[in-house]
Amino acid sequence: MAAHRIAGVALTALLTLARPVSAQTPPPSSLQAILDAAPARDWRPIDPANTVYLTLPQGRVVIELAPTFAPHHVANLKLLAAAKFFDGLFVVRSQDNYVVQWGDAEAKKPLGGASRSLTAEFDHAYGRAEAFTPLPDPDTYAPQVGFTDGFPAARDPLTGKAWLTHCYGMVGAGRDLDADSGSAAELYAVIGQAPRQLDRNVTLLGRVLVGMDILSALPRGHGDLGFYQTPGERIPITSIRMGSDVPTADRLNLEALRTDSATFAAVVQNRRFRKDAFYKLAAGRIDVCNVPLPVRVVK
Amino acid sequence: MAAHRIAGVALTALLTLARPVSAQTPPPSSLQAILDAAPARDWRPIDPANTVYLTLPQGRVVIELAPTFAPHHVANLKLLAAAKFFDGLFVVRSQDNYVVQWGDAEAKKPLGGASRSLTAEFDHAYGRAEAFTPLPDPDTYAPQVGFTDGFPAARDPLTGKAWLTHCYGMVGAGRDLDADSGSAAELYAVIGQAPRQLDRNVTLLGRVLVGMDILSALPRGHGDLGFYQTPGERIPITSIRMGSDVPTADRLNLEALRTDSATFAAVVQNRRFRKDAFYKLAAGRIDVCNVPLPVRVVK
Repeated sequence: MAAHRIAGVALTALLTLARPVSAQTPPPSSLQAILDAAPARDWRPIDPANTVYLTLPQGRVVIELAPTFAPHHVANLKLLAAAKFFDGLFVVRSQDNYVVQWGDAEAKKPLGGASRSLTAEFDHAYGRAEAFTPLPDPDTYAPQVGFTDGFPAARDPLTGKAWLTHCYGMVGAGRDLDADSGSAAELYAVIGQAPRQLDRNVTLLGRVLVGMDILSALPRGHGDLGFYQTPGERIPITSIRMGSDVPTADRLNLEALRTDSATFAAVVQNRRFRKDAFYKLAAGRIDVCNVPLPVRVVK
Repeated sequence: MAAHRIAGVALTALLTLARPVSAQTPPPSSLQAILDAAPARDWRPIDPANTVYLTLPQGRVVIELAPTFAPHHVANLKLLAAAKFFDGLFVVRSQDNYVVQWGDAEAKKPLGGASRSLTAEFDHAYGRAEAFTPLPDPDTYAPQVGFTDGFPAARDPLTGKAWLTHCYGMVGAGRDLDADSGSAAELYAVIGQAPRQLDRNVTLLGRVLVGMDILSALPRGHGDLGFYQTPGERIPITSIRMGSDVPTADRLNLEALRTDSATFAAVVQNRRFRKDAFYKLAAGRIDVCNVPLPVRVVK
């Protein structure tokens, strides 16, 4: 299989880097060269059965699920998608520099066989077998940050707990005041500066692989908390389906760079120490939410 | 003067906080209570002569300038605005999770009395008189972070240098490969996760006070680096004017919370330690780019 282009979130993140704020032709991207040189084993196929396709009038969004971190929420979401629960519901909120949110905001629609609420999955005890590629740089919020199975994550060695971090493009399950009141019938995606204060306060269950440019550019709501003020402003959800239920011809054949690979380690170093004609000073550091997580479409 | 509402970026940031991911009625916001109780002296009037009004078909954006950090770029921008240099130019770029960019992308339009290029203003030696309200929490990128005159900033006590940080809503001067090639004839605003690797690599000269919701929701460009691919996709700039050249009746009478005030210190503590019905775990930390910088419209 030949990789034909870098897609979605990764595309944005990668192309960002060469000439950030000028209109002229970018210089050769050493990051792209690193990716081009990656052996096939450093890429992992994305399992369609572990993805969700959110279709809006504006286009399609593909989310990879994180069952390691939120097994019950992921299972519930699969039931909801299989029951076509979301079809005809809406994107109800777009709050600038924060989140877009969609699904059953009023928790009134019958859930079929899915649960109305689930025990919070804010963190879990990580075992020795759980992958974790740490970053070397200090983080404001957590003792350790890094990557597990392609997701940005944090750990506290003192408690032995791990959790996902609220980076741009992360997807979580809305809830009410009760920690155990979420169900994945209402979802949100981060569209601004990482609201890390939400870490371990809401259950994160996945990450947008393709289509963040659609979600993040939806018109902002001007009600409290960015909710749309009138029904007409809401964005109708055409459908939400498990990737494995999308006809093969309509499915994206996606691969993600393994975050436990040598190529990913090279990507991180490349981003920590910029060496190109534009940068005059290399930060020598990187925030967990600034590390690109490359995704590509394979034909 | 009575304060009638909290505006723009601050509005978004503040309303964010009470019930982040649920549709139900938010509980009383203790942050709002802190602001409501602030003495008048803790708010500073925004000097119209230190603001820029960017008018687009979608609405109006107000930027406060930072002459302490970029005196020559600010002076040049004032000349350009006075000469109506930007009128008829375009927003040429909207790169997801990165920047929107506008102005003379090809550096071809005559600049009148303004300079074509300026010496970089990436950092400066801070004196004892320069205000700085430090944050207590570790930062990934800088030895110290905090706030100077309402702007997010960083310091290195070893070198005695200070610089602005690339937080959401910060505005900088695009440049070519040469560090000294910027002029403020091309500007950008951060619309995603803070690209802190740009700190001290590009001259920041201000911050969006009002209208980030407009800039950040512009359609994304799909060319390299998020540039629009066709002229028709570009967003025409109706005008850029100094606030002091905007007719009084059309001007916003803005105030910002002083970042050296007791009220601001209370805001920071409130955001570091969430105490409301939604949060189950207070981070006890905050990133410099997550601190709200309240702005209000006074009538």
